[in-house]
Parts: sequence; C-alpha cells; structure tokens
Amino acid sequence: MRVTALAGGTGAAKFLRGLAACVNPRDLTIIGNTGDDTEIWGLHVSPDLDTVTYALTRRLDVARGWGVADDTFHALAAMGALGGETWFRLGDRDLATHVYRTRALRAGVTLTDVTNAIGRALGLRARLLPMSDAPLRTRIQTPDGWLSFQHFFVREGARPEMIGIEYAGAEQAAPGPAVLDAIRKANAVIVCPSNPITSIGPILSVPGLRAALLETSAIVAAVSPIVGREAVSGPAGTLMRACGLPAAATGVARAYTPWLDLLVCDRRDQKEAHAIIELGAEPVFADTIMTDHEHEVALARAVLEACA
Amino acid sequence: MRVTALAGGTGAAKFLRGLAACVNPRDLTIIGNTGDDTEIWGLHVSPDLDTVTYALTRRLDVARGWGVADDTFHALAAMGALGGETWFRLGDRDLATHVYRTRALRAGVTLTDVTNAIGRALGLRARLLPMSDAPLRTRIQTPDGWLSFQHFFVREGARPEMIGIEYAGAEQAAPGPAVLDAIRKANAVIVCPSNPITSIGPILSVPGLRAALLETSAIVAAVSPIVGREAVSGPAGTLMRACGLPAAATGVARAYTPWLDLLVCDRRDQKEAHAIIELGAEPVFADTIMTDHEHEVALARAVLEACA
Repeated sequence: MRVTALAGGTGAAKFLRGLAACVNPRDLTIIGNTGDDTEIWGLHVSPDLDTVTYALTRRLDVARGWGVADDTFHALAAMGALGGETWFRLGDRDLATHVYRTRALRAGVTLTDVTNAIGRALGLRARLLPMSDAPLRTRIQTPDGWLSFQHFFVREGARPEMIGIEYAGAEQAAPGPAVLDAIRKANAVIVCPSNPITSIGPILSVPGLRAALLETSAIVAAVSPIVGREAVSGPAGTLMRACGLPAAATGVARAYTPWLDLLVCDRRDQKEAHAIIELGAEPVFADTIMTDHEHEVALARAVLEACA
Repeated sequence: MRVTALAGGTGAAKFLRGLAACVNPRDLTIIGNTGDDTEIWGLHVSPDLDTVTYALTRRLDVARGWGVADDTFHALAAMGALGGETWFRLGDRDLATHVYRTRALRAGVTLTDVTNAIGRALGLRARLLPMSDAPLRTRIQTPDGWLSFQHFFVREGARPEMIGIEYAGAEQAAPGPAVLDAIRKANAVIVCPSNPITSIGPILSVPGLRAALLETSAIVAAVSPIVGREAVSGPAGTLMRACGLPAAATGVARAYTPWLDLLVCDRRDQKEAHAIIELGAEPVFADTIMTDHEHEVALARAVLEACA
C-alpha cells in the first residue's frame, strides 16, 4: 500500500512514527510544510521538515515536540552575547542541520535535494518531500501588522489576535518535483493531525495540490487534530476560529472539503458524525490522543484500515 | 603611548594579554592577520581575529590556544553525522561567532565593521583591525599541490613538505580603512611573537603596509617567536627554513628588514646580537617564554621600555 502523508510538525510527528511502523518505509512519502520556514541568524530553518526527520530517526525531543533530544544551547547563549536574536531556540546539534542546509541552498541545491540528503545521512527511510522548493511563507495579520509565522507563533507566543492569514508566494510556487505524483500515485493520502490553517493550509495553497487531491484515485483521509472544542496541542483551535471555521472535527472537515473522503475523529466526537457526512466525508472514530508509541501505532493502523 | 601591534593568533594572544595590561586599551590597536581565514560549512571563519578577541576578553581556551574555553562540540558531531567536514573543530560557542560574522558579511557589512561589532559585544576594549577587508589568503605549495593554510596546517597537521607559499589576492587587497593610519600615527609598532611566514607575512603582503612601516616615525619592534633554533610553538621554524630563512632570531630580523628598529629576543639568544645588528636592527634581550600571565606582562613591559 503506497501512502502519501501531508504533514506539519509536532502534531504530525507522532502520527508519522505510528505510520512508519505500519507501512514499508519505501512506500511512505511525506509531503512536508515549508510555510513555517524562516531565516534565523542568516540560516535557512525548516522547522516542520526537521521535526519529521528527527521524529522518524529517533532524534526528536519528544517532550518539547521540536529540536533534537538532549540538545544543548551553547551557541544560542553565545549568539545572545553577540547581540543576536535568541527568541528562536536553536540547539547546538540542531544548528548543524541548518548550517548544512543553508550551505547547500546557497550552492544552488534545491530544498528537495538537501532535505533528501539530510534524511539519508540521518537514516530516514521514508521519502520526505518539501511541498515546494520555492519560498512560500505563512504570514499572520495582527492588529499591529503582519508577522511571519515564527514571529507570531514563537516570538509572540501566538498571543496577538489573528485577524488574517496569507500564504505569501503561493501563486508563484510550483509544487516540489515529486509532490503531485506522490498524491496521484498513492493508494491512500493521509492528512496528519496537524493545524489545518498553518500546517496543512500552506501545503494546500501550492498550485496544483488541491486539484491533485480532488483527482487522485487514492482514498484521501485526514486525522482531526481537534478533540471536542480544542486542539490536542498548539493554537489550531484559535486559528480555526479566526478563519471562521468551528474549532471542532466539523471545522476540519470543512477545511478539507471537497476532496476529503474520510475524517478520522476522536471517539468523543461521535455527535459530529452527521455534520461531517453532510460535508461529503465519511467519519471514522478512533482514539486519537497519542500518549505513547503504542497509541501512535494503533491510530495509524486504524486510519490505514479505514482507507483499505 | 599609542601602540599598534601586528598579530597572528596563538603566539600573539599571550603577548597581547600582557600588552593590554600595560597600555590603555584606547591607545592599543591590533592589526590582525586574515590570511588564515577560511570557509568552513559555508561560514566565514577568521581564526586569528577570533583568537585575539577571545584572548583579550578572557574567553580563549588557553591550553589549546584557539577557540572558546570549556566549549562543547555537539554541532560538530551532528555535522559529522550529516556527512559534513569535521577536520576543522568548531566549538558550539565559537560557532556563534562565525554564524554572526557570515550573516553580517552577506548583508554587505565589511570585515572591519563586523570584527568591531563582535569585539564591542564581547567587551574587547582595544581596537582590532583586520589587515584588509579583501580576501587575501595564504596558500602553501606542497609536493601534491597547493593547499589553503587551514588545509595545510589543521587538516594535514603541517606535515606535508612546504615547497612554496603565496599570499593569494595580495595585489588587489587594499589595507583595512584604519590600518595604515594606525601604523603611521603610533608611537610604537610591535610585531607580536607570531609566525613571520604565515601570520605576519600575509599582513606585510598587503599593499602599502611595508611602506607604512618604513615611513612611520614610530619605533618598530618585533618579538622573536624563535628561541634557540625552534619556535616556541607551532611550525614557524620549519616554515622559515622552507622560505630560506634561518630558524633563529636572526631569521626573524631578516624577515623584517629593512623596517625593523628593535628585535626583542630571548636571553638565550645573546650570541645572535651581532648578526641582528648587521641586519640593521637593535637586539634587546628578555625572557620571551610566557608561561603565565605574570610573564606575559613582564615581556610586554620589557618591549615597551625598549621602545620608549
């Protein structure tokens, strides 16, 4: 079974660990969000791509949900002494990834190729594809003006009121070289339990992506990152409400209409079944809270069974 | 007394610590070698400038003679896992300096200005001037071809036979903006006990430098890095012999002819007095082995007294 997953960062990482335990890694392609990419200290940082790579190569700091486990922050402290920015906490081991990537990009290597090189070097067996090699950046409008996603989310702690969102550069951004094919040729496309607005939204904004999802013969499933009225983690609920979507499984279904076939929701959300069906998707209920690896695998298995 | 010092890295660092204890830092200008500068991981590394800055701000790893004391090497290990180069050992704290500098240089800041910014941020009170803002690189010819200085010295451990040396880019390199003035307006110019071939040689290759040393009304003194027939540290002796200079105080005097007024040599080299005088410089004898800070200060004081 060839599976293609659309993935953000922290939320997706757990689910992908489960998926990687159920699917032959050669048959698993992950399309990663790069709307969060940012330049820190002149380095190209791809937080979501790295979270996926670190998660699937057992490097991820699971408690934080980002960065490398047991990392140190000596370069960060030294950068602070130099007067550099320290709000984005790059660990020492993590820093090597950004330095490596930046050097390659400056030498003309594409983000797709350098992501592949990093994955190969670190032992990633699944295929991780950036959604696009072009700069496509999520920007959040607040009462005080527009902020890049990382400025909004990390520097400002997602506290400012969000009054608008844009995926800057989307019109000009071509999908990564293998991205559309990965959707077209999959047996199942699975949208990870990621933030629909800021993790999956940028992927969907890439020209051709939505059409590929509509046209693919694959079953297209999504795992809801919302349980009840709140996101399992992160600001997905708030951001969905700001975008006029209910912070509920129904809101997720609405964000993924009209190409969604199945929506895997938490068992506690069975009362949403009718609304989801009305939106054209079939609801599937499972335990979506992944408290340990066993639950990650169980959820992945439930999603795959629903797709089969 | 306005003092301008010409400095390499490790050898100069100790002497400069002594000098900084004797001279008002506002009256101390250090012209630093950038012939050793190199690109590691796409980052601009200025080993000699950083050694001086770290030494004078109490950060230098004194035992190694380079890098930051108590630094860790987690980014280096992570870069190794990615397949990156690890022969040049960048510590985590040190790495911040190179990332900071590289970002500024890419933004169009001159090496002079970014060196000044780093020094100011770290509490450097003396003025540190790169010899030139232009790329001027020491290259060593070996039987197997030309190597950059760092490839020769660090990667190959200075083991290959040196059959030639060039200061690539010297013809096109203008001195840094305040460099010639610092020589012309000093009361004393002191060449630190650095390698005459690979630390001071690149500085002297900058157009206008030798003329400024000849023309300045300052006393020009040098501290010999050679005691007896060997360098106090590093490969200076071998490199001097390879350049046809005796590895002896006399060889140092010859390298700095005709602009040298005083050569401060170790007391053990009193038999060289006559040869040094014949080369046009006045020999001064002192304890040049700086085993602790007291000796650093004593040597600096002896040199300043000889200049006065």
